Amino acid sequence: MKVGIIGLGLMGGSFALALRRIYNDLRIVGYDHNDQHGIEALELGIVDKVTDELESFADADLIVLAIPVDGIVALLPHLTFVSPETTIVDLGSTKERIVQAVPSEIRANFVAAHPMTGTERFGPQAAFAELYRGKVVVLCNIEESGEIQRKRAKEIFSDMGMKIFYMDAAEHDRHAAFISHMPHALSFALANAVMKQENPRAIIALAGGGFKDMSRIAKSSPQMWTDIFKQNKSNLIEAIECFKGELERCEEIVLREDWEALYGWMERANTLHEIL
Amino acid sequence: MKVGIIGLGLMGGSFALALRRIYNDLRIVGYDHNDQHGIEALELGIVDKVTDELESFADADLIVLAIPVDGIVALLPHLTFVSPETTIVDLGSTKERIVQAVPSEIRANFVAAHPMTGTERFGPQAAFAELYRGKVVVLCNIEESGEIQRKRAKEIFSDMGMKIFYMDAAEHDRHAAFISHMPHALSFALANAVMKQENPRAIIALAGGGFKDMSRIAKSSPQMWTDIFKQNKSNLIEAIECFKGELERCEEIVLREDWEALYGWMERANTLHEIL
Repeated sequence: MKVGIIGLGLMGGSFALALRRIYNDLRIVGYDHNDQHGIEALELGIVDKVTDELESFADADLIVLAIPVDGIVALLPHLTFVSPETTIVDLGSTKERIVQAVPSEIRANFVAAHPMTGTERFGPQAAFAELYRGKVVVLCNIEESGEIQRKRAKEIFSDMGMKIFYMDAAEHDRHAAFISHMPHALSFALANAVMKQENPRAIIALAGGGFKDMSRIAKSSPQMWTDIFKQNKSNLIEAIECFKGELERCEEIVLREDWEALYGWMERANTLHEIL
Repeated sequence: MKVGIIGLGLMGGSFALALRRIYNDLRIVGYDHNDQHGIEALELGIVDKVTDELESFADADLIVLAIPVDGIVALLPHLTFVSPETTIVDLGSTKERIVQAVPSEIRANFVAAHPMTGTERFGPQAAFAELYRGKVVVLCNIEESGEIQRKRAKEIFSDMGMKIFYMDAAEHDRHAAFISHMPHALSFALANAVMKQENPRAIIALAGGGFKDMSRIAKSSPQMWTDIFKQNKSNLIEAIECFKGELERCEEIVLREDWEALYGWMERANTLHEIL
């Protein structure tokens, strides 16, 4: 299988390493704006070759778009040269703006995917083969993809050990705002709130596991997350407003010292873990 | 050493198990309102005996108060019978109201401690010997404790492998609001915001590591946390307001689509991890 990986960071690099674990007879070519990433990806055995010519992917069986979501939207119009058999999969965290940006000539080639995985680290050095195993991947508007492409994408994600969910792109973006994008906003805001205190070092010295968990994703890439917030703006704002409503309910209960209501509010929060 | 553990849950149970790892010649007696906890603690080898008479701790070398913070405040006036040599250590997450509640007759006996550790689990079954190792413990207003008691408390926490910090109780409560209490409010609010959506199951099915981390402490005990919010009310509200200011800054930047400012806001959040 001939594979082109566009974007050799955590997501793209890990995708290549995962493919190497499950398939023989692979030829993986990488493409990245950042030359240093290309060099590292070669050294780490993530790719067999790097290129700076997109056209060299014309006969690829699979092209993986693992760059920030704005980059995906900008790149799609430049991929119309691919063969009718090629499968193009994107790994972006937003889906509606991306599926809208796919040129009609290559709509059948395209499979919109969002693997619900990641770490706060980035770059080729952060890549590891097990990033995708056991995780969920959401495939959006799959009925608009060609038959060959649907089959190939399902097969690859399934071979990678992922659980596949199907969803409309608009529904995906609403859900992702609640389960991922808004929680990132909270973590960034928490980090900034603490850093703004008079003596953040003295405060942070006391950090236990709870704070470490809550602030971990505040380490995430600003480039990647600026794009996501931009592309999912209205769902994100709606999710933040909904969260703020709950936080203000907590404040209001504490201020009027209704400890029974506070107990009930916390007990309701506990119920999440019956589902999670 | 004769030890009395009041409260046989995660904190008290783990404290007993940690003592067993480091000292021989221990006699550990437990006390818990919940009879079932007493039975389990005996079965699990956490305590040698359970009692329902506080007075049996009169000649204890060490009494550990590992109950919710309101319980500590209520219990302190009933511990005036202890010998002048006894050390009473509380493990509560707030400190100012507790040190104010210590009767003057036993002020020298008392050492106010907050070990910055825990898990979202509770009860004797949740206890494990390694809970405290490598973690921070804050000792408050230590100059008000007697010499024997200061020495004993430092020795025990140090033998348990903890890093000891000293702080004024009021300062502790301000810091703890930012590093622990407010983050718990965020996690509870996040869980409630998601559970309130039309189809929480469909959303939660997509949860990746970020959401799992952010919602983990929403599983914490409502009883324990209602008390903490109550005792640290004004610092908690101040920390929530500060957090809300940062979240609203994010919203405002997203709404006016100033992506450069958003990038800068996220980049500032990243700096937390240079300290953490």
